[in-house]
Amino acid sequence: MAHRGFASDNNAGTHPEILQAILAANEGHTLGYGDDPYTHRAIETFKRHFGEDADVYFVFNGTAANVLGLRAVTESYHAVICTATAHIHVDECGAPERLAGVKLLTCETPDGKLTVTHVQQHMHGFGDEHHIQPKVISVTQSTELGTLYTVEEIRALADYAHAHDMMLHMDGARICNAAVALGLPLRAFTRDAGVDVLSFGGTKNGLLGGEAVVLFPPRARNDAFKFIRKQGMQLASKMRFIGAQFEALLCGDLWQRNAANANAMAHRLAERVRDVVEIAYPVQANAVFAVLPKRHIPALRARSFFYEWASADDERAVVRWMCSWDTTAEDVDDFAAAVREVVGRR
Amino acid sequence: MAHRGFASDNNAGTHPEILQAILAANEGHTLGYGDDPYTHRAIETFKRHFGEDADVYFVFNGTAANVLGLRAVTESYHAVICTATAHIHVDECGAPERLAGVKLLTCETPDGKLTVTHVQQHMHGFGDEHHIQPKVISVTQSTELGTLYTVEEIRALADYAHAHDMMLHMDGARICNAAVALGLPLRAFTRDAGVDVLSFGGTKNGLLGGEAVVLFPPRARNDAFKFIRKQGMQLASKMRFIGAQFEALLCGDLWQRNAANANAMAHRLAERVRDVVEIAYPVQANAVFAVLPKRHIPALRARSFFYEWASADDERAVVRWMCSWDTTAEDVDDFAAAVREVVGRR
Amino acid sequence: MAHRGFASDNNAGTHPEILQAILAANEGHTLGYGDDPYTHRAIETFKRHFGEDADVYFVFNGTAANVLGLRAVTESYHAVICTATAHIHVDECGAPERLAGVKLLTCETPDGKLTVTHVQQHMHGFGDEHHIQPKVISVTQSTELGTLYTVEEIRALADYAHAHDMMLHMDGARICNAAVALGLPLRAFTRDAGVDVLSFGGTKNGLLGGEAVVLFPPRARNDAFKFIRKQGMQLASKMRFIGAQFEALLCGDLWQRNAANANAMAHRLAERVRDVVEIAYPVQANAVFAVLPKRHIPALRARSFFYEWASADDERAVVRWMCSWDTTAEDVDDFAAAVREVVGRR
Amino acid sequence: MAHRGFASDNNAGTHPEILQAILAANEGHTLGYGDDPYTHRAIETFKRHFGEDADVYFVFNGTAANVLGLRAVTESYHAVICTATAHIHVDECGAPERLAGVKLLTCETPDGKLTVTHVQQHMHGFGDEHHIQPKVISVTQSTELGTLYTVEEIRALADYAHAHDMMLHMDGARICNAAVALGLPLRAFTRDAGVDVLSFGGTKNGLLGGEAVVLFPPRARNDAFKFIRKQGMQLASKMRFIGAQFEALLCGDLWQRNAANANAMAHRLAERVRDVVEIAYPVQANAVFAVLPKRHIPALRARSFFYEWASADDERAVVRWMCSWDTTAEDVDDFAAAVREVVGRR
Repeated sequence: MAHRGFASDNNAGTHPEILQAILAANEGHTLGYGDDPYTHRAIETFKRHFGEDADVYFVFNGTAANVLGLRAVTESYHAVICTATAHIHVDECGAPERLAGVKLLTCETPDGKLTVTHVQQHMHGFGDEHHIQPKVISVTQSTELGTLYTVEEIRALADYAHAHDMMLHMDGARICNAAVALGLPLRAFTRDAGVDVLSFGGTKNGLLGGEAVVLFPPRARNDAFKFIRKQGMQLASKMRFIGAQFEALLCGDLWQRNAANANAMAHRLAERVRDVVEIAYPVQANAVFAVLPKRHIPALRARSFFYEWASADDERAVVRWMCSWDTTAEDVDDFAAAVREVVGRR
Repeated sequence: MAHRGFASDNNAGTHPEILQAILAANEGHTLGYGDDPYTHRAIETFKRHFGEDADVYFVFNGTAANVLGLRAVTESYHAVICTATAHIHVDECGAPERLAGVKLLTCETPDGKLTVTHVQQHMHGFGDEHHIQPKVISVTQSTELGTLYTVEEIRALADYAHAHDMMLHMDGARICNAAVALGLPLRAFTRDAGVDVLSFGGTKNGLLGGEAVVLFPPRARNDAFKFIRKQGMQLASKMRFIGAQFEALLCGDLWQRNAANANAMAHRLAERVRDVVEIAYPVQANAVFAVLPKRHIPALRARSFFYEWASADDERAVVRWMCSWDTTAEDVDDFAAAVREVVGRR
Repeated sequence: MAHRGFASDNNAGTHPEILQAILAANEGHTLGYGDDPYTHRAIETFKRHFGEDADVYFVFNGTAANVLGLRAVTESYHAVICTATAHIHVDECGAPERLAGVKLLTCETPDGKLTVTHVQQHMHGFGDEHHIQPKVISVTQSTELGTLYTVEEIRALADYAHAHDMMLHMDGARICNAAVALGLPLRAFTRDAGVDVLSFGGTKNGLLGGEAVVLFPPRARNDAFKFIRKQGMQLASKMRFIGAQFEALLCGDLWQRNAANANAMAHRLAERVRDVVEIAYPVQANAVFAVLPKRHIPALRARSFFYEWASADDERAVVRWMCSWDTTAEDVDDFAAAVREVVGRR
Repeated sequence: MAHRGFASDNNAGTHPEILQAILAANEGHTLGYGDDPYTHRAIETFKRHFGEDADVYFVFNGTAANVLGLRAVTESYHAVICTATAHIHVDECGAPERLAGVKLLTCETPDGKLTVTHVQQHMHGFGDEHHIQPKVISVTQSTELGTLYTVEEIRALADYAHAHDMMLHMDGARICNAAVALGLPLRAFTRDAGVDVLSFGGTKNGLLGGEAVVLFPPRARNDAFKFIRKQGMQLASKMRFIGAQFEALLCGDLWQRNAANANAMAHRLAERVRDVVEIAYPVQANAVFAVLPKRHIPALRARSFFYEWASADDERAVVRWMCSWDTTAEDVDDFAAAVREVVGRR
């Protein structure tokens, strides 16, 4: 029987409907590099969600979506303000600095969510050539800690950014989970809330592989983005296979079904273990962060591998459990039982 | 009926056996980023071809394979010597300069093949801090012009490189076509002929998408390559799907079957049009370059799109016709008939 | 009468003995780029201070000394740990990220001084390709806040760095002030305390312009540094004029005389205003940081310009007053009187 | 007695009037980083030569002037077209590629002078994302081979560039020599001939050290250049000493006197040896390139060092003899006698 775990939502495979779309796209020859009907239709699908004038560019992975999206709207003397837990800061091996050519200015937050108050600590030195110039505020939705920005919170950051001639970037590696959790259309908490540059994640929500950079006018335009993508080593020759996936994900409700399942399973898991472990952050999307005695971790990992996220204190660690589009209630219940059993031990 | 053309071998889709391998890999969860059985087996398959101590890293596309492979063995004050027709020089939008951080020194050649004589024009200024330091010779096999290096020609360049404390890089975007054309194992004209860094191409030979950087000791080692790949935005989270493709391609003879068909179709095409158009370069792999009166190009493109490669003179252009793993004899014969018909016109 | 102020020690001009050395070097032709007797003698002078096997490279300014020194010992996937007040973080417009290609990881400190405890927060993720790899700890001596590391404090950081296969970099823009304040030879608190890479500052201590990158074996070696400097746009053609300055500064006691005056004047200034303004940090070198009611700043700046360093609260700011090699007791007494007069107002 | 040779015009020292200006600027304190009266006056002097709306930025050396000037007007997917003998291609260790982030496309020329015909070979691939986008044509005036562009030749290149939405950059490391040779004001063959970006060289014409980037509207504007210079490690803290030099050079006729002497001496040298050695290129500025039997080079170098520029054939080399602002007729006559004596030998 196939194993499914809680280590990461990218440990899941490809949704059958996505695979079917890939098979269907495997017909004859098409021009390369995106000039094919599958990619064209996928872009049209994005435009239906985000507006006709949104610019959509497919790339291979999330690092690239973030880095090239930031690159599109910054110069080398610009800074990006983000949380200290932001994926772009802790999990991209310096790619934003090296390849987007920006400096990251980080803010400590209790829950992975940036506020204007956090941002303000870095809002100085404008016009001073000695100082890097803040140009972008970057948020992750849903956050790296499984929490969620409300539309109003995003809007507040966007308004603040725009008032200072800056832009708002959203790392949407789990944007579908956020949309479903908020009960909103994709556009409502992105473009309509003031987001200028969006990394749209597909891989964690059932794709074989594929992400998108979405630029929203009037602020985020870059007619040269096609050169940036090619030079950034992210132009797929057989792009039809990325296009076909995104069309399948977004033309109907697959994006919602996948995300809804992952979110529901995370809530189910949290409910089933809440009385025996401390839940570290509000469970608002598809992640559960739990505080676990370190001595219990090996036994529990033997059941199903997961990552230790941080040390809580000498004896306890914060661990992360992610749910996926394919996580089943049975998976959750089995794992919750294991948690209860292991944590219940002396 | 599915259309198949001659514009590029990357206009072809995915071979059914490769798709089957993707489907078979879509079972349950596996760890991300390459720590999965499919990727492990694919790496083992590469090692069977190239030697147990070869280092193999999968990336998304050919630009990345070339750029990160060069990056692995160079410093920013190093130069790479290549032909003026090299893909790294003309078709990667400056990615080698920007992301590998090397300077390219180019040589004019009649047939896309570098010789020691060509290379020598750039072999000066060693130790002079004003001058970029040549460190790598880069060849493409089969070349961008459809020609082929013999083992002896590769060996001569490798020996020359090594005698000058330099390395030999091979852009093997069409390495399988070369192997089949030479009638040699993959190792015989790469590692065993002195190649140090190899970009191994899969996408043009029937994969949905996937390439590999292969580093051969003792010269090309880089224990930090995993960081270079991640920072280079080329670490796939669901890497099992690249691994599964490469295992399917290389564990049996699929790599040979696909390449053999493409090569055979190119020869067939050349034979069928040779008496009505000039063939620009020896047809040694899966490309046919023909010299065509410019006035005939629109009519012929209306049958099947192809690229104008260069201008031969005021009236004639060099055009490129590529054959693929899925090109059929009927495709060739139809297109050859079209060529004869169009060119035969007044 | 010439004006002298307290805005920065780089607002001072060139010490007459340095100018004299420049004039003396202006004799006939010498080879360019450092192959001249003045530069050779200056390097010998450095070696007398720091050891025969130290590698010494002159550059134009402090940004370059820091950036190229870090570049010499790092790869693009490396991080440098420094304070949040470090010059490399706040005052070099992102040059370390862009040109050294490193990521900076910052620590909040009360006094501009890093400790092992601060550093530890960033010491994780080693070997994890997603995470930037810490490789250098960077300290500034004397610090940007006018404070001083003891030899033991430096040694503790160096030992910790070396135990983790890392290096210790010292931004010595004001290294002479530190040496005089510590009453130690230059080597005692740098190389002998475990520093591996040193930015040696000359400009703030009486030079017309010139800094040096000093690399200490066995850890910090880079035979290719000459290429890094040239490519880094820091190879002076008429380098004899930098060499001559450094020889004049370091062959006798001029470096000590200049620094001693600056330090003494800072102490004098602090003493003369201490009863009317709060001194923000211990005055240990040539800087005085004072907490001043914001409403008094314009009046005092009208006497002599200085920088507001940070906001202390809504009503008060931390300001910086720097003393220089040419600051006189009369300058200090006049300015102190102005402070007393202005601050004494209602 | 002071030695003067013919190796390079940067082997000469500083003109006494320049040194005098440095001494005069060494009075009291001034603000750093260019906000001082000397720098202000120097910029005004440039504006008198080049127009009130020219943007002038001082940097330390010629590499920086070229690299940052190109950086100011290009993106990373842009190419610069230059000769194969251009200093930016052969003598800056890859700095343009790495720090300006451009790709250089080179043209073989007989005399170091670019023409529209040369440039045209690289004028293709516009709008094609696979291809680097030509954006700048770069010429050197006077050239690296001692030759000179006429105003009409520059204008032809500028018109061609502008007609293709490109810019013209001039590496003016020896711009004063060119102006004097042409008998024209500095503006006549730069801005008025269509140059958009100018590297203005001072060091080779009698400065202790200093160059300038000059940007001409309407095409070359970059309001962010101050950030580019600072991040590019080229912002001098004691900038008054660069400003003072340039004011002294350009406010009167010192720039002409220095260049005129260097040019006259080169012509004198060429005349005195022309009957015994072949002069390789027209002597139009301050360089003499001679074809010399290789066996004579050591003996002649023993008299006065000079560089072998290229190999002419197995037995002969092209050597370079540069004249400087301080070369005397006696220096020339002595060296010419040595040439005649050595070459006259069997």
